[in-house]
Amino acid sequence: MSFQHVAIIGLGLLGGSIGLAVEAHLPDVKTTGYDADPAVRERARARNLCGTIADDPVEAVRDADLVILCVPVGAMDAAAKAFAPGLLPEAVISDVGSSKLSVSQSLAKALPDHTIIPAHPVAGTEESGPDAGFSSLFHQRWCIITPPDGAAEGQIANLKSFWQGLGSTVEIMDAKHHDLVLAVTSHIPHLIAYTIVGTASDLEEVTRGEVIKYSAGGFRDFTRIAASDPVMWRDVFLNNRDAVLDMLDRFLGDLALMREAIRAGDGEMMFDQFSKTRAIRRRIVEQGQDDARPDFGRHDHE
Amino acid sequence: MSFQHVAIIGLGLLGGSIGLAVEAHLPDVKTTGYDADPAVRERARARNLCGTIADDPVEAVRDADLVILCVPVGAMDAAAKAFAPGLLPEAVISDVGSSKLSVSQSLAKALPDHTIIPAHPVAGTEESGPDAGFSSLFHQRWCIITPPDGAAEGQIANLKSFWQGLGSTVEIMDAKHHDLVLAVTSHIPHLIAYTIVGTASDLEEVTRGEVIKYSAGGFRDFTRIAASDPVMWRDVFLNNRDAVLDMLDRFLGDLALMREAIRAGDGEMMFDQFSKTRAIRRRIVEQGQDDARPDFGRHDHE
Repeated sequence: MSFQHVAIIGLGLLGGSIGLAVEAHLPDVKTTGYDADPAVRERARARNLCGTIADDPVEAVRDADLVILCVPVGAMDAAAKAFAPGLLPEAVISDVGSSKLSVSQSLAKALPDHTIIPAHPVAGTEESGPDAGFSSLFHQRWCIITPPDGAAEGQIANLKSFWQGLGSTVEIMDAKHHDLVLAVTSHIPHLIAYTIVGTASDLEEVTRGEVIKYSAGGFRDFTRIAASDPVMWRDVFLNNRDAVLDMLDRFLGDLALMREAIRAGDGEMMFDQFSKTRAIRRRIVEQGQDDARPDFGRHDHE
Repeated sequence: MSFQHVAIIGLGLLGGSIGLAVEAHLPDVKTTGYDADPAVRERARARNLCGTIADDPVEAVRDADLVILCVPVGAMDAAAKAFAPGLLPEAVISDVGSSKLSVSQSLAKALPDHTIIPAHPVAGTEESGPDAGFSSLFHQRWCIITPPDGAAEGQIANLKSFWQGLGSTVEIMDAKHHDLVLAVTSHIPHLIAYTIVGTASDLEEVTRGEVIKYSAGGFRDFTRIAASDPVMWRDVFLNNRDAVLDMLDRFLGDLALMREAIRAGDGEMMFDQFSKTRAIRRRIVEQGQDDARPDFGRHDHE
C-alpha cells in the first residue's frame, strides 16, 4: 500500500521540487504543504508547489500518511514539534536532510510514537527558496534511505517506491555510513568552496574585481556551490561534525604532501597525482552523474 | 599593421582553438601549425586546425609575423629553440601559458634577438589534445597580455587586436601580478580539486563506487577541473611556485579557522562566512564569466 497523501514541511528548493515532482509523476498522490515563512507560503501558492498550502503546520499534516521535513537539519526538531498534534498515528515521518545520524536522533526524540525513516535525495542546485524548485530535480539522482533498526520493511518499501516514482534510484544505508560518505562527496567540497571563495575575496594584492574577471580559470566552478544556502550548510556542519572533521583532516594531510611537492619542485609526484584523477571523472560521466559536455556545456549556451 | 601570418606551435586544446578561431573570425590571416607529436599533427590535419600543418618546426614559423607557443610552460624553452632558425627577424613571439614570469624569462633566454610579448587567454575546458579545440573558446573571455619593459607599443597593440579579433577582451598586466592573480583564480582551485579527488579515491571506509554514485552532492564539480591535463598543470606548479605557495598558505589559514569553528560548534562564524560568498557568484554571472542557469544548466540537458 503506497502513500496516498504527502505533507511537505518546508517549501524551499527541495520541498518545492518534491511537490512539483509528485504532481508530474504521481498525480494520484495528494500533497499539502507548509512553510513557517508566510512570504514563502505565498510564493508556493502562486507556483502551485502543492495541491494545498496550509497556514498552520497542524493542518498541513492532517490525514497525511507520509510527512517529509524539508527544513535545515538544525530546524527539524522545532518543525516536528509544531506539526505533531495533527499527525495520524500511522503516519510515516521522513526528511531530506544532508546529515542523517543527528536528524534521526532528534526526530525520534521529538516524535517518540511515530515511525521515522530518514532519507536524503542527493540532488540540489545552488539556488534556494520557493522559486528554485523544479519537477525533474530528482531524475537520475540517488536517494539514500537510512531506516533505523526495527523499521517495518513495508514502510521502507513504500518510501523507496515513492522516491523511485520521482525518478530517483534508491539505496538503503546505515545512517553513520551515510554521514561519512556524504562528508567526502558533499560536505567537504562545500566547506572548501566556501573557504576558497572567502580567501579570494579578502586579499589585498588581488582585488575582488580581478578575482571575478579571471574566474573562468577555475575559480568560478567553486563559486557555484559556495552560493548555496548558508543556514542549510551551517546546520550540516554543526550536525555532522565528527565525519566532517575526519575527512577534512585527511584532505589536509594530502594537501600538505602536495604543498611539499610544489616547494621541493617534485614534478614526478605531481604528475602521478594529477594523472590518477581523470578516471574518476570519466566514471561519474559514464554513470550519468554529470554532464559529458566539456566545461559542463557552458559553451553550448553562448 | 596587424599580423598577417600566425604560426601556432603546439596543437592541443588552446593551439587548435586559436587555429579554428582565426579561420572563423580573421579569415584573411594565414595560419601554419606544428606539433612535436606526429599523431597530433595527423589529427590537426584531419580537423583542419590550421591552413597548413608543417612536419618541421622551422618550416612552421617561416614567414610568420606572429608565433604563438601553445605548449606546457615547461616545454617553452625547447619548443622555441627548435623553431628559432626559421624565424623572421621581425617576428613577434607570444604564448598562452598560465604562468607568465618564468615563461617570459625562459623565452627571452631562448630567443634573445626577438620581441617577446607573453599572453594568457583565461579560457579552457577540462579536455585536452587536438580534438578538444573549438572556435568559440575565447568568446567573452579575458586575455591578459604581459609585455616586458621596453616592448614596442605598436606590437602590443597588434597582439591586443589579434585577441580581440578572436572574441576576447584584453587586459595589460605586469607578469608578476598576473602570476599572483592566476594563483588564486586558477592554480589553487586546480590544486585543491586534484587533491580532494585524490583524497576521495584513496579512502578505505568509503568505496570509490560510493564516491562516484553520490558525487552530485558537490564533489562532481571538482572532478571536472581535476580532469585537466596533468603535464600542463605539473608545469604550472613548477613555474609559479612562489605565488602558489603564498596563496595556498592563506587558504590553509582560512581553512584552519573554519575547522576550528566546526570543532567548537560556532554556527555564527560559519553563517557569516557562508553568507559572504553569494555576492561573488552573482557578480561573476552578471559579468558574463559564468552561466546564469542553476547547476550550470545541467538540468536543461536532461
